[in-house]
This record gives sequence, structure tokens and C-alpha cells, in this order.
Amino acid sequence: MVSSLDSKVQAVQWKKDRCCLLDQRRLPETIEYLDYQTADAVAQAIQDMVVRGAPAIGIAAAYGAVLAARSAYSNSGADWRQAIRHDLDGLADARPTAVNLHWALKRMCVRMESLVADSNPEPDLLDEALAIHREDIAANHRIGELGAEMIGNAEAVLTHCNAGALATGGYGTALGVIRSLYHRGNLNMVYAGETRPWLQGARLTAWELAQDAIPVTLIADTAASHLLSLGEVGWIVVGADRIAANGDVANKIGTYQLALSARYHGVKFMVAAPCSTVDLDMLTGRDIPIEQRSESELFTIAGQPIAAQNSAAFNPVFDVTPAELVDAIITEKGGIERPDTAKIRALFQ
Amino acid sequence: MVSSLDSKVQAVQWKKDRCCLLDQRRLPETIEYLDYQTADAVAQAIQDMVVRGAPAIGIAAAYGAVLAARSAYSNSGADWRQAIRHDLDGLADARPTAVNLHWALKRMCVRMESLVADSNPEPDLLDEALAIHREDIAANHRIGELGAEMIGNAEAVLTHCNAGALATGGYGTALGVIRSLYHRGNLNMVYAGETRPWLQGARLTAWELAQDAIPVTLIADTAASHLLSLGEVGWIVVGADRIAANGDVANKIGTYQLALSARYHGVKFMVAAPCSTVDLDMLTGRDIPIEQRSESELFTIAGQPIAAQNSAAFNPVFDVTPAELVDAIITEKGGIERPDTAKIRALFQ
Repeated sequence: MVSSLDSKVQAVQWKKDRCCLLDQRRLPETIEYLDYQTADAVAQAIQDMVVRGAPAIGIAAAYGAVLAARSAYSNSGADWRQAIRHDLDGLADARPTAVNLHWALKRMCVRMESLVADSNPEPDLLDEALAIHREDIAANHRIGELGAEMIGNAEAVLTHCNAGALATGGYGTALGVIRSLYHRGNLNMVYAGETRPWLQGARLTAWELAQDAIPVTLIADTAASHLLSLGEVGWIVVGADRIAANGDVANKIGTYQLALSARYHGVKFMVAAPCSTVDLDMLTGRDIPIEQRSESELFTIAGQPIAAQNSAAFNPVFDVTPAELVDAIITEKGGIERPDTAKIRALFQ
Repeated sequence: MVSSLDSKVQAVQWKKDRCCLLDQRRLPETIEYLDYQTADAVAQAIQDMVVRGAPAIGIAAAYGAVLAARSAYSNSGADWRQAIRHDLDGLADARPTAVNLHWALKRMCVRMESLVADSNPEPDLLDEALAIHREDIAANHRIGELGAEMIGNAEAVLTHCNAGALATGGYGTALGVIRSLYHRGNLNMVYAGETRPWLQGARLTAWELAQDAIPVTLIADTAASHLLSLGEVGWIVVGADRIAANGDVANKIGTYQLALSARYHGVKFMVAAPCSTVDLDMLTGRDIPIEQRSESELFTIAGQPIAAQNSAAFNPVFDVTPAELVDAIITEKGGIERPDTAKIRALFQ
């Protein structure tokens, strides 16, 4: 079991022979871990948002690949490389926007290529998945320190969605920065936007920070600009699902207008994400696929109907913030101010 | 009974001897009208949002003043002017941000001053309240025509909250413009932001437009900027709760960031409101009181908990859009482009 060190919450775990996911659909009311022993079930869990958050779904997919290898070797022996393909495709197709999912599967495939056909691939692939998980936690701690250093001191920060321990291997990206800043004694209040439609802010971020006794105040997403106009918030800190080569950032729907509002109010806007979130093949954010989810997410909350029957709905769940609105991107390899293609390329060289 | 002419929905009615309000807390699930025979009960209904929307609460308060006069005259005879004060104060204090409430009560007081002490004031005050109601509907039709004329043609518009028949005497302000534009054949789609926390967009606007078969698509408030970036929306059209003398606009929380985003995307931003919404005594929007409502609006929906227990919440329900972000204000006296103090003063002269 991988420990998340400084946060009490763990979204993804490998336990003995199975992948274990904290069911984030039921938080904060119910804390329940679900066990997964097939890649297909893990792919479904990613699609259904049992696990969500770009780095966390990358890690879950890596564990899914371990389960896929077990099944492929058990059913097809030395032909496991052929047999595993269907499961890997299913994992890759589970959600379209976050690139970490594809990054993790690619890394698992590279490891597969190094293996001989006629021995069980599972132990080596588990080793790789555990490394992905461990490295993600380490990256988040580093991101936390670098981000906290750049911010220095803030009366309050605003975050969106959940880019915390629940969205990663542990500690969190945006919430990693916030944890580090708070533990340095340089932050008094975290504002969390509730993040309709899935309410990750209300259900997950408020809960996760409360577990660690970090003071958090919930706001409706609509209240963000009014809050910024009051002058208490120094930085907006968010995670990312994919960062294009030019610094455009795909993240949870609503991020874009926070960045717009931050610029108008002279509030700084920081994106915290591991290097696995950067997609150098995507030249700009224009081409990042934006997932649309079911209209039903807008028609009901917690099973209660909240909208007029027979309405239509448009439910894109990510948006793209242009690099020009981003003040800083923090990765484990370092922070970039006012990102552009040259600065991002330099980070990877 | 006042007819709303071109919209099927009526939020406030006077029926024989009582004020009748469509319970907007229960829409769209349940269509129920509640009867009110005391001013105190009307004030409570305004506070509890049985009736909401700046012009509609103005009209409801005017009917409340009729009921207050009935009670004062019945209990105190010729001393009714003294006896009515407590009820009028209760009505005035029901909600702080919308100025129409105070405007309507002031107009009722002016009428009271013209009355003799020793005869029943109710018939004259009912006459005044019915006039306020009738004039509001007429103003909305005029606003609708002027707004539609200014827009000309739009593939789609986005609106926020509900500034429709449900928020007014009938026809609506923002939705009045939208109705007029649609009936001219110059509009294909209305996008409605769901408007957390009270979900006026999801519950009221989507329902109201569907009653009149005007095509409407619901979005999460977080999706507005992504939607604007797609280029389909030509105008954002909203109502107002109070317009300061310089053109700053207090309206439902979230309006401000829509205006910011509209400017960034080259989308036009229109505020539609009757002259009773303009508060010439308020030099800028800075001093408009911003109502904060219960934290519970962020913690539960329809009785279902949706947020972490023991969180704090900050729930301002209005914000102020600076005049510099407003492309047009449409009143029944005419439209103003790029509003400022001089243009608004000219409108009232």
C-alpha cells in the first residue's frame, strides 16, 4: 500500500492482488472503498467517476493494466501481448480529456515491451504501476513546495473542482500547493467553488480539507467574481487535465472564467500539475477533446429533480484556459511564469 | 385580475380581496398558488422567496400595502396612517437589494398622502397597486420591443437567473426582450444558466420558456465562458435588481462574471429593467446593499445534503456589474448604449 504521507485521504490503492478505489460518487455522505479485479471494471469505474482527477485516473488505469495483464496471461499465456489489447483500449477510451490516462498507459506499454513473452508479466507491471503511483505523490509534494514558495503569503486562495489527494496519488496538485502554504503558516482561508454540475468542490474539496483541519469556505461558482472583487483572495490555484505545448490549460468546466476574472481583478492564476499532464503533441488547447457528459447531471442533484422537465441541456465538463490568462504553471520540474511554448519546451529538456 | 397578455405565466395576482402568489420555491415540480390576506404574510413570502424578481416583489409589496391599509383601517379607523407603519416597514425590510420594493412602497405612500383620514383607504390603494402592476406589464412589453430592436438578430442569447414573467407583473424584462426577439423570428436558441444556489435558471427560466414553446438549453453556470468561446451567442440579456445613477448594475450573483466574459469574447451585454429599478440616489454600485442568504442554500438541494458537513459557506446572492462592462440598458423610456451618469440622467428628464 502506498502511503500518501501528508494527507489523510487516499483515492486509489493497490491491496495485495486488487485495485481499491474510494467511491467519490458517494462522498462526503458515505466513505466506501470498492475492489476491482478486472481492467474492464476499472475502465467502467473511471467512466462512472468512482475515481476522477487526471493523475488519479492515470494511476487507476495503470493498475487496470496490471489486471489486464493478469487476465491476458491467464487466458492466453505467451500470447498475452495480443490478448491484452482490448482491455488497454477500453481503459484508454474511458475518458477523453485528461492526458494522464494515456500517459500512464503508454508508460505501462513501454514496460511491457521490455518483458519476455513466456513469463507472467504481472509482477513487472505491478512494479511499474506502483512506481507511477509513488512518483505522483513525490511530484505533488515537490509541486506543493514550489507553488507555496512562489505564492509566498496569501490571506486567502480560491480553488475550483478537486485537485487534491482525491484527484491524485496523494497530497494533491492544487491542494498540494494549498497544503504546503497552509503548513508554512502563510494562508488563512481556502475558498472552494462548489463546481457544478458534479459538485467536486462542495463534496470533495471541502471534505478533504476538513479532514486535514484546513479552514475552507464554500461558495457558489456564481459568487467567484464578487469574492475576487472584495480583495481578500490573492491567488486562484487549480489543477489541470491537460496542458498543451503552448501553455493552454484544459481543466474542469468553470476554470476558464475564473482565470478571466482573476486577470480583471489583478488576482494571480496558478495551475499546478505534474509533467504527465503536459501534452507536447498538442500544440495549442484548441484541439484538446472536451468531454460532454449526460444532460441528467443538470436535471437532478442527489436524485432530486431540479430543472424543468423536457429541457435540453449542454454539459461540457472541461474548458480551455488560454495561456495568456495563466500567471504560473507549477510542475515537479519547476515553475513557469507566464507560460509559452519556449518556456514549456525548456522545462522538458 | 390583471392579464399578462403574451406569457402564460403569472407570478402575482390580485383576486377579489387577496393577493395570490405562485409559489416559486416549488416550481417546476408543483404549480401552487398561495393566498395572502395580511401584509405580514406577504412580507414573509417575499423573504422566503415564494415570490422573487425585483419588479414582482415590488408589485407584491404594493398589494401588501393594500392589505396593511385594510387591517389598519379596520383596527384603528381614522388613525390608519399611524397604524399602517409597522406593516410597511416589515414589507420594506423583507429583502435589501432590489430597489423596486422601496419604489413601489414609496408610490403607495404618495397615494396615501392624497387620501382623507376618515374614509377607508383600501379602494384607492388597490387602484394604485393595480396601476403599478398594469404599468409594469406595459413597461415590459415596451422593453421587449426596444431590446429586440437593438439586438436585431441573434443565433442565440444567454440569460441568467429568471427575469421573466415570473419575476415581474408579466412578460418579463430580459425574457421580455427574448420573447419579442423570438416572436420576430430573429432568435433560434436561448441558453439559460442554472443560477446556483437557488437555481432560478434551471427551475424557473427553463420552465417559463417551455410554457411558451421557446427553445431553451440549460447550462451549468460554470459552462458560460466555454459556451461564449464557441461563438454562437451574440448577446447576454439579464434583468436587474438595482441600477445605480452611473449605470452600475446589481443583479443575481454570477451576472458580473458573465459581463466580464462577454467583454472578453466580444459578446454584447444587455440589461433590461423598468425605470423603477434605477436608483438615482445611489451614485455608484459600490453602496448597493448585497444580501447574504443562509449557508444552507449551499449545503442542501431539495433537502438532500450535497456538501461536506461543518463547512463554512459564503452566500452573497447579488453582485454588482460595473457600468464599463454594460453595453446597453433597456428601459421602457428607451435604451442607453454604454451607460454613464449623464445618459441615465437624460433618460429621466
